[in-house]
Amino acid sequence: MTTPLRIGLLVFPDMTQLDMTGPLQVFSAVPDVEIHLLWKTLEPVRTDSVMRINPTTTIESCPQLDVICVPGGYGTDALLGDRDILDFLTRQGASARYITSVCTGALVLGAAGLLDGYEAVTHWTAMDVLGDLGAIPVQDRVVIDRNRVTGGGVTAGIDFALTLVAEIFDRATAEGVQLRLEYVPHPPFDAGSPHTAPPEVLAGYQARIGPAKRRRAEAVSRAAARLAAAASDQ
Amino acid sequence: MTTPLRIGLLVFPDMTQLDMTGPLQVFSAVPDVEIHLLWKTLEPVRTDSVMRINPTTTIESCPQLDVICVPGGYGTDALLGDRDILDFLTRQGASARYITSVCTGALVLGAAGLLDGYEAVTHWTAMDVLGDLGAIPVQDRVVIDRNRVTGGGVTAGIDFALTLVAEIFDRATAEGVQLRLEYVPHPPFDAGSPHTAPPEVLAGYQARIGPAKRRRAEAVSRAAARLAAAASDQ
Repeated sequence: MTTPLRIGLLVFPDMTQLDMTGPLQVFSAVPDVEIHLLWKTLEPVRTDSVMRINPTTTIESCPQLDVICVPGGYGTDALLGDRDILDFLTRQGASARYITSVCTGALVLGAAGLLDGYEAVTHWTAMDVLGDLGAIPVQDRVVIDRNRVTGGGVTAGIDFALTLVAEIFDRATAEGVQLRLEYVPHPPFDAGSPHTAPPEVLAGYQARIGPAKRRRAEAVSRAAARLAAAASDQ
Repeated sequence: MTTPLRIGLLVFPDMTQLDMTGPLQVFSAVPDVEIHLLWKTLEPVRTDSVMRINPTTTIESCPQLDVICVPGGYGTDALLGDRDILDFLTRQGASARYITSVCTGALVLGAAGLLDGYEAVTHWTAMDVLGDLGAIPVQDRVVIDRNRVTGGGVTAGIDFALTLVAEIFDRATAEGVQLRLEYVPHPPFDAGSPHTAPPEVLAGYQARIGPAKRRRAEAVSRAAARLAAAASDQ
């Protein structure tokens, strides 16, 4: 491990910004870390909100990372077939101390061949396809399997990052960050999971994301076929 | 209220980005909203992390907002004496449907004269000075007093935004957003409040923020004096 600890968070078009900005806030509160926001170029990257994110480092110029983290969002569909990004992750993953994701970022790790035989979690709407990329889906807020640490959907990124900080540094460091971020969550409703959301809310959301789920299933299917072809070539 | 609902989130140097990016993610998941990230210029704004945020709209060109939201961070000290920003908030506040803040953004609303006689909350480390700016400090995750809606520190922004969406639209809309963001928080530790953090974690954090607290107290004191002078001029 280098000192300071080098953390790289991927940013990409149509990402869900909170998947990244939650962990970023946690990591930024830890002393002795060096954080990179990574993309192919340094041009601002559009997200699923009006906020465009400025990468700090290109994947080409990125030093070896201690922690690589892939956030999620609809933009992951394109990454699942993006050779430059998948090669970058595979290369970094060979020496990184922790290989991590939030939300549907787990699918990208899977497409890069980095979750083969590892337990992992993703956004609840993507759990059904995670296994197609070699991972063993486990429904939990944060899943640790050896040096793979994956978080569930979007807001799970905060729980994920605090867990990772405790794992890498120590519990008191993570608790200090939690105190600073006043992380005593108190959701006004209990609708954050398909098991607790009112049936009509769940049905409405599922109807709205139907087309996106179909596009994702196709992207995962193509990525799985490429993984299988690569395996049979060896 | 305009259609779509116009929401403006202030961005400013040395802000705590999650104070803004949490609510931004919630608001972005609601149909029929128009979101502005506001600052004096459109140049990227540095935050307390490596991420620089691109404003979308200058305060000069900003249309009348339905919701104005001021996030927090160490950069609020400078805003407490920033005539351009305080005037902008006072002007927008005269007609906005909701005047809101996250974290120490409440101090900025107070310095703009917008919390006089209103119950409000801020980051737990700033509750002791909130009353100096005319607000009535109430310790809660989210505080609603007429059309003022304030959230506690940093991560409270997510609870704040879901609460506000339910208030403006309806509960089912907020629940749909909560489901999409998989907001079933599960902090790995119970250290998010000074009442639950281990004593040594609390003491360590308080020692680290001592200088910042003193700078904030001075900035609040100057803002309070200006408010008093302005009141006696009338």
